[in-house]
Amino acid sequence: MQRTRFSDMACSIARTLDVIGEPWSPLILRDVYVGISRFDQIQQDLGISRKVLAERLAWLCEQGVLERREPRGAGYALTSKGLELCDLLLVMVRWGDRWTAGEAGPPVLHRHRACGETGHVDLRCPTCGEPMRAADVDVLPGPGARL
Amino acid sequence: MQRTRFSDMACSIARTLDVIGEPWSPLILRDVYVGISRFDQIQQDLGISRKVLAERLAWLCEQGVLERREPRGAGYALTSKGLELCDLLLVMVRWGDRWTAGEAGPPVLHRHRACGETGHVDLRCPTCGEPMRAADVDVLPGPGARL
Repeated sequence: MQRTRFSDMACSIARTLDVIGEPWSPLILRDVYVGISRFDQIQQDLGISRKVLAERLAWLCEQGVLERREPRGAGYALTSKGLELCDLLLVMVRWGDRWTAGEAGPPVLHRHRACGETGHVDLRCPTCGEPMRAADVDVLPGPGARL
Repeated sequence: MQRTRFSDMACSIARTLDVIGEPWSPLILRDVYVGISRFDQIQQDLGISRKVLAERLAWLCEQGVLERREPRGAGYALTSKGLELCDLLLVMVRWGDRWTAGEAGPPVLHRHRACGETGHVDLRCPTCGEPMRAADVDVLPGPGARL
């Protein structure tokens, strides 16, 4: 039943998460990202239990992704660490729009502030500028690997 | 205890998922993406229960993200839908390397096949080519929105 509900949401992130994993934390991030930032607002928007939401918010604050706004009750804000995590949401939307949105089309659009155009994010190589997607890379052990 | 284990993995994806959600499905995708594709290999690599792994694999196949290779026992392969979902992994690695890898450095490197350089993926606007990250966009209702 939970699965059906996520896949029924008019949200490419929810639909992506329906495939890829437990969805609450990214959906909480999404809400705060778009300005739904107070406990009661988030709880109502997601239909999540208050207990689970409180736990997830505490965890995300502990991880330095969200922080409580002052005064108490003013809601939550993304830290810079959390805002960077929202980059994932852009890529989730790209995939979800392509594979799950169907004829209704994208539930949300991303408008690039610099140029005013809407569109999906491009993944590019920082060196040569050509497309750099999962199909375009080799994965190698790095310095932090435990072999 | 599960949380500690994921954050202890030398893997920026696992560490990102430790923050952002249930990790099994994306970690299974990661394994298949890097060539760990047979049931027993994945089970051993992740230390996941056989029951949970079987459920997740069935779900990912049902969603058209993975497919069974023939003959039976030859393991799993990413579909094109699944390979595109792995784009998310590149962005998870970028975030995880920056915020969770610490002094040991990145556990894995991504080498761009086109130019041979290693580095993190860039998120760019498809129209103007400038950086397009979560901080750089406005979110607007799209045609598929349910308002």
